Amino acid sequence: MNIDARVNQDVIQIDLSQRRVFIRDTETHRQYAEPFDHLVVATGAVPIRPPVDGIDAKGVYGVKYVEDGVAIRNAIEADGARRAVIVGGGYIGVEMAEALLMQGLEVHMIDMLPEVMGTLDTDMGALVSQAIRDAGVNLYLEEKLVAFEEDGGRVKAVVTDKHTLPCDIAILGIGVRPNTKLAGDAGIRLGEKGAIKVNEWLETGAEGVWAAGDCVESINLVSKKPMYIALATVANKQGRIVGINIGGGRARFPGVVAAAVTRFMTTEIARGGLMEREMEGLGIECGSATIESRVKSGYFPEAGKMTVKLLGEKGTGRLLGAQIVGGAGAGIRGHVIATALQARMTVEDVVNLDLAYAPPFSGTWDAVHIAARQLMKRV
Amino acid sequence: MNIDARVNQDVIQIDLSQRRVFIRDTETHRQYAEPFDHLVVATGAVPIRPPVDGIDAKGVYGVKYVEDGVAIRNAIEADGARRAVIVGGGYIGVEMAEALLMQGLEVHMIDMLPEVMGTLDTDMGALVSQAIRDAGVNLYLEEKLVAFEEDGGRVKAVVTDKHTLPCDIAILGIGVRPNTKLAGDAGIRLGEKGAIKVNEWLETGAEGVWAAGDCVESINLVSKKPMYIALATVANKQGRIVGINIGGGRARFPGVVAAAVTRFMTTEIARGGLMEREMEGLGIECGSATIESRVKSGYFPEAGKMTVKLLGEKGTGRLLGAQIVGGAGAGIRGHVIATALQARMTVEDVVNLDLAYAPPFSGTWDAVHIAARQLMKRV
Repeated sequence: MNIDARVNQDVIQIDLSQRRVFIRDTETHRQYAEPFDHLVVATGAVPIRPPVDGIDAKGVYGVKYVEDGVAIRNAIEADGARRAVIVGGGYIGVEMAEALLMQGLEVHMIDMLPEVMGTLDTDMGALVSQAIRDAGVNLYLEEKLVAFEEDGGRVKAVVTDKHTLPCDIAILGIGVRPNTKLAGDAGIRLGEKGAIKVNEWLETGAEGVWAAGDCVESINLVSKKPMYIALATVANKQGRIVGINIGGGRARFPGVVAAAVTRFMTTEIARGGLMEREMEGLGIECGSATIESRVKSGYFPEAGKMTVKLLGEKGTGRLLGAQIVGGAGAGIRGHVIATALQARMTVEDVVNLDLAYAPPFSGTWDAVHIAARQLMKRV
Repeated sequence: MNIDARVNQDVIQIDLSQRRVFIRDTETHRQYAEPFDHLVVATGAVPIRPPVDGIDAKGVYGVKYVEDGVAIRNAIEADGARRAVIVGGGYIGVEMAEALLMQGLEVHMIDMLPEVMGTLDTDMGALVSQAIRDAGVNLYLEEKLVAFEEDGGRVKAVVTDKHTLPCDIAILGIGVRPNTKLAGDAGIRLGEKGAIKVNEWLETGAEGVWAAGDCVESINLVSKKPMYIALATVANKQGRIVGINIGGGRARFPGVVAAAVTRFMTTEIARGGLMEREMEGLGIECGSATIESRVKSGYFPEAGKMTVKLLGEKGTGRLLGAQIVGGAGAGIRGHVIATALQARMTVEDVVNLDLAYAPPFSGTWDAVHIAARQLMKRV
């Protein structure tokens, strides 16, 4: 197979009726049409830049490309930035807080929600908020970004509805949106948050037009509803599926369980499935159990604490979701939860999971088992 | 509920027809009968002591009770033992090798098999053998225990079919057998390796007589055949099930996937399901894939290597087993495998598992995914 890889070629229009795309050479500005048998839309996502005053000031960074990281490091090392405000306490915000603390900066973080990590329920997010405060971050919760103050084109403060926070740099960590203007303009059907709707083969509404990655809507296997989730794992799996299908094979993408994991200093955070606060909107009656255990047998000196929250459906007993916050070893337990959710296990199935035990790895009952035992009484 | 907990009372006979047990007080030697409505047999297992010359010499230790550990430590600290021979390279042998190395002893290990860790296939066991040698253990493979040489009632050497290995202490790590003479004598049906046969409610062949723990036979959920597995996790789960059933509830023990994990120094070892070498006996045609990856994203300095071997059934594509050997973070991945096996996932299901990703935890494709992708071509 020959791959005709062309750089600096910008697709400016998709013409579904003629099955061709229009391309502009970004150097020569020449435009030309190219026919296709199959078209793959993999236009990804872009960081959300809220339309507030000062958003385009120098020193306000989104975090998407390696170059963004280089620019932030230069602002610290070359320009001597000492004070950073991070807007948003999700994955990017939390990971950037760690990176900036380790560079020795004074770090401030604002979030609209009652606690950081909006992909956790508030009770579990509170554990992460606490870890962030304990590490020395100044955390401002339930505060909204209003504007960036500038001085000669450079950011000098982040203004919220409650404070003005002086800073040398500001980091945007308020999520991404699918980059789907091209697809939308072509008449390809969009769904959740403007992401491209695909079937289980990852074909869009237009025959022979496929989509994969951060521009695509996913089906949540727990709720069976569409959702938008922009994660590298999902994008990688979808790329493989589209490749197989275009190559004449037949592969199905089953959907996602919204599994995610991150780390802030020594605190690990994992989640999968639905949150308690989503249940009402979905009409699901759920029980919940939260337990505290250890990442390994308690007599190990390095056996960190770990809090596990499990959710199950009343009546059916089906496992609906899990959230884990704890020391080293907590995060990778998200793998069990993801697998159990994808297998549509009940809470009782989880209790009876034959998870291996040795003292350096868990208790004889893993923390996940212990939470499931508690939850069995409530579903 | 009142629990009449009696110590120093030895059950010497179970009388099924009269539904009573005979008990001897180990202090007064008084014997008496006690009737029962329900009887739970939880007599556990005992370390195998092979009937060779010198087996009862001082300094030959089985490892079952805390007291055994104390005795071994005393032999080192008080009696100055410097040279140890470990008989058997399974879980106990490998864990004892680590403990004795850390006490500064010269450690020798013998095993009958071509590689240590008989619960792994030979190719994966070889990785553990190498780690054991790298740590300074003198490893003698394909050697059989013949006798213990004594000097004044104390062990002075372990004799194999190839060597005489001088030692101050010898450790038996050649497995356990179910402690079921009492049950067998009473006419309770025994199965695999003399373990008690139970139904899915953990009731023995005799009504109202239950059994749990290391004295019980388990059903392997992958092969659907009975097996004997003496592990704390299984015992704990079975205890809970019997408790519920005696208490008037109704709980089922689904079986095991033979998940196990251990650690030798910095090498972690996990396994679940069937081994390649078991397939022929079971009449299963299997494909196999072994890959090497990292426990976290490769650009982390502490990203240790990890080898994953997966087995799947040709035709059906069903996942049959997994073996993992690698650095810190490898072992806990056995949890995913155990969960996937218990859910009877196919290899393709494993490829599509929505496992969470962040660089401190895995690659975008987890090592388990990568192995499953390779295996898909062979099932």
